[in-house]
Amino acid sequence: MEKIRINEVASYVPAKVVTNDDLGEIMDTSDEWISSRTGIKQRHISLNENTAGLCSKVAIKLLQASSWSPESIDLIIVATMSPDSYTPATAALVQGKIKAVNAIAFDVSAACSGFVYGMSVAEGFLLQEDIKRVMLIGGEVLSKVIDWSDRTSAVLFGDGAAGVLLEKSESDSGILARNLKTYGELGDKLEAGKTDAIAEFPRMGKHEISAFSMSGRDVYTFATHKVPQSIQNAATKAGIELEQIDWFVMHQANSRIVTQISKKLQQPIEKFPMNIAEYGNTSAASVPLLLDELVKKGKIKRGQIVALSGFGGGLTVGTQIIKY
Amino acid sequence: MEKIRINEVASYVPAKVVTNDDLGEIMDTSDEWISSRTGIKQRHISLNENTAGLCSKVAIKLLQASSWSPESIDLIIVATMSPDSYTPATAALVQGKIKAVNAIAFDVSAACSGFVYGMSVAEGFLLQEDIKRVMLIGGEVLSKVIDWSDRTSAVLFGDGAAGVLLEKSESDSGILARNLKTYGELGDKLEAGKTDAIAEFPRMGKHEISAFSMSGRDVYTFATHKVPQSIQNAATKAGIELEQIDWFVMHQANSRIVTQISKKLQQPIEKFPMNIAEYGNTSAASVPLLLDELVKKGKIKRGQIVALSGFGGGLTVGTQIIKY
Repeated sequence: MEKIRINEVASYVPAKVVTNDDLGEIMDTSDEWISSRTGIKQRHISLNENTAGLCSKVAIKLLQASSWSPESIDLIIVATMSPDSYTPATAALVQGKIKAVNAIAFDVSAACSGFVYGMSVAEGFLLQEDIKRVMLIGGEVLSKVIDWSDRTSAVLFGDGAAGVLLEKSESDSGILARNLKTYGELGDKLEAGKTDAIAEFPRMGKHEISAFSMSGRDVYTFATHKVPQSIQNAATKAGIELEQIDWFVMHQANSRIVTQISKKLQQPIEKFPMNIAEYGNTSAASVPLLLDELVKKGKIKRGQIVALSGFGGGLTVGTQIIKY
Repeated sequence: MEKIRINEVASYVPAKVVTNDDLGEIMDTSDEWISSRTGIKQRHISLNENTAGLCSKVAIKLLQASSWSPESIDLIIVATMSPDSYTPATAALVQGKIKAVNAIAFDVSAACSGFVYGMSVAEGFLLQEDIKRVMLIGGEVLSKVIDWSDRTSAVLFGDGAAGVLLEKSESDSGILARNLKTYGELGDKLEAGKTDAIAEFPRMGKHEISAFSMSGRDVYTFATHKVPQSIQNAATKAGIELEQIDWFVMHQANSRIVTQISKKLQQPIEKFPMNIAEYGNTSAASVPLLLDELVKKGKIKRGQIVALSGFGGGLTVGTQIIKY
């Protein structure tokens, strides 16, 4: 049976690094406090370069790594919760930048689950006969939505982008099964970029958006319950045992969450690689950012079974089980 | 062959009406100036109710009109360029509100083409075996992104929401063909809700987003060239002549654009119904808002051929040809 396969993976993070000690200089926090609670040591922060800029660098890397011309791309999806604009979509800006003149382009908004959700959006288009090659990128410039005086949220996030090229394949590599779930009744547990409707007409003045606000405890409880369920359900659907999964590539929100997921699933922590220490939580970028690192290091090899899981704002959770 | 069919359509607009004369009181404009150039006489403006609120009212109407339970919905997509938040997605809030506990929910960002793009996203999921029922809503509260002192853009837009229930069907009703195109190199011709990356770390203070800015002449030229092409291409793909299309349900951006599209296609203007006079440009909501009106009035009947076209920010254009 025809599958949807990852052809290439690439990533890009901005050069500027902000360490926990750097944050300790502008707010009441410390490296010990942050790293012991989250696993984060530093994060990359984008100066002047917006989400479409980061994503375009990933797009160019993907084209260079593959034999695909820009004109051969049929669809570009950017998963982001920090778009350049309400319009144009960040994906449209990437499409224009790389001159992928035949590509449909739009953004998907599903926060930290955006990349994993986007894989199913891409799969749906690839099931339609006129779509053969898809570029899917998760990219975030969360630094522009952070309140840098709020030590409860500012320490958690970072900027970055990463993505994949997806294609139809007759090989046995590809997406085996997915599980996507949304818990909209918990939407208020994690909010960012909120704009209010006007209260009276006309409302003059600047338009403001809110910074991050989250109930860390609720999100922790949610993630440590729902992500294991999602992985188990996707594995069952794929007809495989958890033991057959070589790698669990989890959204990097908090090392404690990942450790707890490993315990709940009774799978060794060695199968749950992490890079949160270097990047912090990069939302929709984190799963492909870690995937790229593991592929480039030769850890994830063709033919291995990999579970990709995102979770966060929505609240949302999602798992894709693939044979890489 | 199995098709993707519209089961129900519904719409909701906020009660408050702002006429051209009302605008003439707060800026240097007039009913004559606005209506002669755009066809707009008034627009509905949402006070205190955000995009998810409008979309939830559409969702409830859709459930009431159909025999579908909230639990039977597999996927909720909101197409919007004025979401409540960066996260949670507006669709997640709708999902929570109507207790569609089994529905995956996310937003699609493709501006005024969002609903038409969203139909293909929905179709892709419906081609996957576990997805049988999709709710697709286009909703906007553009009033919160408008600079009410800018007479070039403020007069054009309105708030509203409308949507459809989509399902697999063995009947001959359904989507016949689509044409979606993105022109990202023209992205700067129509911008809204822009946020800049930070220029130095840390950037303290509020986070602002830009209001609408557009090059009306460029968008006019774009739309009057690319929409006829898109319709012609979709019709060819569907294997039908333009004469066989009963109704052209065009995005309501400007009555002059719609008139020009009718001329370019050499199809009678009577086949291009308009409701822009009442609602203004409601972006992703406009196509389903007009569709709902035409279905409710008994103009669009089951078995008729309808072309649905969106165009705008991205820049994007898209056409779905359906047998209703």
